[in-house]
Amino acid sequence: MTKLRLKMNLAELEAFLSREFPQGFGPGRPHSIISVSPGTAKVRLRAGEDQLRPGGTVSGPSLMGAADAAVYVAILAVLGPVAHAVTTNLSINFFKRPQPGDIIADCKLLKTGKRLVIGEVAMRAEGDEELVAHCVATYSVPPR
Amino acid sequence: MTKLRLKMNLAELEAFLSREFPQGFGPGRPHSIISVSPGTAKVRLRAGEDQLRPGGTVSGPSLMGAADAAVYVAILAVLGPVAHAVTTNLSINFFKRPQPGDIIADCKLLKTGKRLVIGEVAMRAEGDEELVAHCVATYSVPPR
Amino acid sequence: MTKLRLKMNLAELEAFLSREFPQGFGPGRPHSIISVSPGTAKVRLRAGEDQLRPGGTVSGPSLMGAADAAVYVAILAVLGPVAHAVTTNLSINFFKRPQPGDIIADCKLLKTGKRLVIGEVAMRAEGDEELVAHCVATYSVPPR
Amino acid sequence: MTKLRLKMNLAELEAFLSREFPQGFGPGRPHSIISVSPGTAKVRLRAGEDQLRPGGTVSGPSLMGAADAAVYVAILAVLGPVAHAVTTNLSINFFKRPQPGDIIADCKLLKTGKRLVIGEVAMRAEGDEELVAHCVATYSVPPR
Repeated sequence: MTKLRLKMNLAELEAFLSREFPQGFGPGRPHSIISVSPGTAKVRLRAGEDQLRPGGTVSGPSLMGAADAAVYVAILAVLGPVAHAVTTNLSINFFKRPQPGDIIADCKLLKTGKRLVIGEVAMRAEGDEELVAHCVATYSVPPR
Repeated sequence: MTKLRLKMNLAELEAFLSREFPQGFGPGRPHSIISVSPGTAKVRLRAGEDQLRPGGTVSGPSLMGAADAAVYVAILAVLGPVAHAVTTNLSINFFKRPQPGDIIADCKLLKTGKRLVIGEVAMRAEGDEELVAHCVATYSVPPR
Repeated sequence: MTKLRLKMNLAELEAFLSREFPQGFGPGRPHSIISVSPGTAKVRLRAGEDQLRPGGTVSGPSLMGAADAAVYVAILAVLGPVAHAVTTNLSINFFKRPQPGDIIADCKLLKTGKRLVIGEVAMRAEGDEELVAHCVATYSVPPR
Repeated sequence: MTKLRLKMNLAELEAFLSREFPQGFGPGRPHSIISVSPGTAKVRLRAGEDQLRPGGTVSGPSLMGAADAAVYVAILAVLGPVAHAVTTNLSINFFKRPQPGDIIADCKLLKTGKRLVIGEVAMRAEGDEELVAHCVATYSVPPR
């Protein structure tokens, strides 16, 4: 893997995503970026009404959405805003029902290839060390 | 696989899901059941505002949610309303951006074991033959 | 999916694979092709000594190898002998220990794209209807 | 995750596996254990004739077998020799053709539950830092 460099910082990513992905990012939306570095991204999933399932815990599809978003953020950060990346494969294991509260999705890129980028995501309830879920997602990216 | 029998019909499933899974099912919600048989379920994902992504097509997380829901419906139908089934693994491949419009998620149970039930889901834009996505999901079910 | 046509028949495939993939195919080797059609392939895994695990049943890695081979055969059949296809992702669910005996791996291509081809494989002990395993594999293929 | 403790050391694991899994472990066999700790295992895949594919690199099925074996070793180490663990799901991404030579499979358990244990495996050519493949596997274990 060639050395990765940040092409967008946190503020640029939030602005880009609020515009391009308004269901997920922006004021009042469930996802926000906590931090980003070359090859990693940390995304918060706010546990609002829409994300809850009976019992008050975050639903599986909300976790999947947050995992997918975390990988997307990590990819945009190193590829820049022009990238039209699309998920081609996502595989997720669910380990336990999270406690009510926010979820932190911690993405590390495993490979940044010319056509495929793969990231893994560790998901935890905020303040808890144990994994709630673990996800590996592949994005197809335009050749550079 | 022992012969599967329906323990809930379509109306019973819709009533149960509107109560237990109100984010997904019920009036004004994105998911509805088209049909169910022992070992299969067909679920419609209504492509409303919340499910769309830029370009007017259904988002990946919405497809994942519908796939997960279709397997859940197929499981409830043969296990009955008492089941507390939880997804333990979901793997999905995305093949192409769907055309704007509803998505049909077609689930077939591959195995109905004592502790694990596995279903596969073929997803298509309504009226189109080509797959938009294909998903395999495992649910952990309480021992019977 | 544009209409698929066979570019290699069964005899051509066996000859090609015995040469290019001699660990798997050819006299005395574990894999052989039962049938092929545009978009499908059926491969036999002979349950020899090397494939067995304690208890006389075929091992998980042997099943994975046969699933991977079945998708490869289905791809070669429609892309022709020039293809340098490589597996990029393989996801398999194991359902039950197979009975001692041969395994039949039944592949259907789900998508035949310009860069990615995805196939699913149903695996059964010969003569048994129940699934032993189910696999979905993605191959990266050279642009055509 | 409750604190894990080793119930078998490296020598006990090698002895157990040579007896129970003679195709994989033991003198002249492809797999050997490099190290083990509570929740991790490192396994070497010797790149012998049987594991090679055209071009002299280790084949995909050999990598899958080594990943599966690494998770099995990590599980036995903390569950002890009585465990009849079976793989229920394995998902692997292949990143690049490894250089000729041995492969190191580095397993970390992500969850050690009562019924399911999940491990992830990073695979590299010996002496190389880049990933060759990355795998996540789920084992079903007898209730304890």
